[in-house]
Amino acid sequence: MTTAAADTPVITLTTDFGHKGPFVAVMKGVIISALPNARIIDLTHEVHVHWPAEAGFWLSRSYHYFPPGTVHIAVVDPGVGTSRDILGASCNGHYFLAPDNGLIPAVLDKQGNKNLFRLSDQWLSAHAPNTISSTFHGRDIFAPLGAQLASGKIELADIGPEIFDPVPSLIEPAETVGGQLRGVVIAIDHFGNLITNIAAEQLLGFSMPVATLAGQQFKFHKTYGNVAPGDFLALINSFNVVEIARAEGNAADSLGVGWGAPISIRDCAA
Amino acid sequence: MTTAAADTPVITLTTDFGHKGPFVAVMKGVIISALPNARIIDLTHEVHVHWPAEAGFWLSRSYHYFPPGTVHIAVVDPGVGTSRDILGASCNGHYFLAPDNGLIPAVLDKQGNKNLFRLSDQWLSAHAPNTISSTFHGRDIFAPLGAQLASGKIELADIGPEIFDPVPSLIEPAETVGGQLRGVVIAIDHFGNLITNIAAEQLLGFSMPVATLAGQQFKFHKTYGNVAPGDFLALINSFNVVEIARAEGNAADSLGVGWGAPISIRDCAA
Amino acid sequence: MTTAAADTPVITLTTDFGHKGPFVAVMKGVIISALPNARIIDLTHEVHVHWPAEAGFWLSRSYHYFPPGTVHIAVVDPGVGTSRDILGASCNGHYFLAPDNGLIPAVLDKQGNKNLFRLSDQWLSAHAPNTISSTFHGRDIFAPLGAQLASGKIELADIGPEIFDPVPSLIEPAETVGGQLRGVVIAIDHFGNLITNIAAEQLLGFSMPVATLAGQQFKFHKTYGNVAPGDFLALINSFNVVEIARAEGNAADSLGVGWGAPISIRDCAA
Repeated sequence: MTTAAADTPVITLTTDFGHKGPFVAVMKGVIISALPNARIIDLTHEVHVHWPAEAGFWLSRSYHYFPPGTVHIAVVDPGVGTSRDILGASCNGHYFLAPDNGLIPAVLDKQGNKNLFRLSDQWLSAHAPNTISSTFHGRDIFAPLGAQLASGKIELADIGPEIFDPVPSLIEPAETVGGQLRGVVIAIDHFGNLITNIAAEQLLGFSMPVATLAGQQFKFHKTYGNVAPGDFLALINSFNVVEIARAEGNAADSLGVGWGAPISIRDCAA
Repeated sequence: MTTAAADTPVITLTTDFGHKGPFVAVMKGVIISALPNARIIDLTHEVHVHWPAEAGFWLSRSYHYFPPGTVHIAVVDPGVGTSRDILGASCNGHYFLAPDNGLIPAVLDKQGNKNLFRLSDQWLSAHAPNTISSTFHGRDIFAPLGAQLASGKIELADIGPEIFDPVPSLIEPAETVGGQLRGVVIAIDHFGNLITNIAAEQLLGFSMPVATLAGQQFKFHKTYGNVAPGDFLALINSFNVVEIARAEGNAADSLGVGWGAPISIRDCAA
Repeated sequence: MTTAAADTPVITLTTDFGHKGPFVAVMKGVIISALPNARIIDLTHEVHVHWPAEAGFWLSRSYHYFPPGTVHIAVVDPGVGTSRDILGASCNGHYFLAPDNGLIPAVLDKQGNKNLFRLSDQWLSAHAPNTISSTFHGRDIFAPLGAQLASGKIELADIGPEIFDPVPSLIEPAETVGGQLRGVVIAIDHFGNLITNIAAEQLLGFSMPVATLAGQQFKFHKTYGNVAPGDFLALINSFNVVEIARAEGNAADSLGVGWGAPISIRDCAA
């Protein structure tokens, strides 16, 4: 394994903290206090609250746009301060730190080349602040751990024992049942586009796919501008998953659909 | 033309992407992967969705606060993936990249010293990722193009042919009709202040200006604290345009007024 | 006093500007134009509008997570453009710049080792832009002043005379009245957790504390996961103050409680 060291170590932050209060900021303060040349990029802080599935989904579809060696810290953590573990993972030269709540498997389930480690009490005793709060491990554990890993001073294997049985993802992967592809709405963007966990490659055998969501049917088009403003469409979006959208409109509001809503796709040519 | 090269190249990002999902973050990942020392500043990601006019307005009033050589990327792009062009512009030592949908003219219409170029298919073939998505040119075209321009390795003229006929701004500039100045609400800030496209210099001949918006009249004052909390006022704001505000209150909510609402100003002394 | 100079000067920004429009961005543009290597961290821009008390509270609980020498600029400024003063303060190696509206005392009231200075007209004449707007001192005064201070070229004492009578904090500190601790809701986070100005150390004498807010009573637990999802709890949060929360829910929405709401705590064992 190569270390994460680089001239400019890169750390991304993914949380459900939103932008009220200094929660993200003090994580950054802790990181730059330990690693002044760290480059910190906010992946998003508007993950659906208490839903690690969305954080894992976005990381799985985004991490490779960052330089190799990047440390991706993801804190969507309703179990903070309980006995849940903290995991570190490496995959394709990237590093991931998250609570053991299904988030990491959502990132890495389909990746072959990965290793998982459980943060040990020894690391906590040696490296974390004297007082670790019960409600903000992002600041008190993830930030110093991420800075140390990004600095290249430690290997991921130094944080604790390797494990092979993380808590599984909350959400089943999309799959084919009786000729239908079945998945869920895994994220909703600022435009109200409904983003699903059905991957483009799962549609390869379909010659005339039609999506069904909230009792309505949607035909596939290439992009929003290919239908009239106000019309609905299905498309393969820029992260290579199926999306239901409304051209120059808000599909989530119009359809009254939220996170976790079921979607199915059948092949009308079949 | 001097190149954009500098010890620390600066890139600003203006979009209507909001803060949900990793859309802005992966643009940054692409930029720093190509140009590790790029300094990226979010201008705003809360432009009124699908409304290039607001993005152009804010850039026109903001760009000169950044260092010369800054590359300003603006992606408000309802036509993404259709045949619309992509433009690059230079003006007063700054660079602008945006879809050809009126955004760039909204930035530069009143500037004399400007040059516009249309991104060529040759540049796309040579420099963009093998697969350009149909729905996210921000990541697949604008980010790598912006990084290359900010690096100083290319001149703006290298991206394609010079053009003189961009798609014009969606919004007519404010103008005087029958003794009245007429404009529109072009932006609404977090406080609910209604910001118009009427410039301070257009009021130079007025000795007693009174604004009319949503059937109500507003007198001009110097600043919010010059009227009682809860009172409405018109003022020349910090970007040198006319603004309608409510002291320690929210004018947009109170008046029920949105983007594009017409405003007029007459001179009561006339 | 040591100066703020460092290889990488750090500046934090705290405002109630939200994320619409380029207000925060142009402050950053002004800072990096003057001090290209400044590292700027957004503390938060979603302070409750026109309420300096929340900004002061968060800064008081957060500043020590940043490196010594950090300059903390806080602009929650309903009196912008009126005759209100601008203050600079130093405390424990950190610097603070804010309007004289109670914000700085909210940060520093319980700190011993502090110095306050009032920005002089001389500094403004010598260093600020030729035209200072009446509505955006963040850009026209605070940004250039913060950059200059962070550069280490000036001492805080150079900005004007030392003062000892700043406008006091809007909010009384929490205190014990008739055996009850009384405070207020000073901040609400993205999860709807109600964060109060009652410090953990004020509860030291209590063996069975119970909080009362909005007519309901709340028992103390260690963390959210210690009660069932949907249940309410009181806890000492990660910033060492009392918080009322709803496990995997939104306490603010559920209780209909906002900023400034009174909370009391009594000792049921007393």
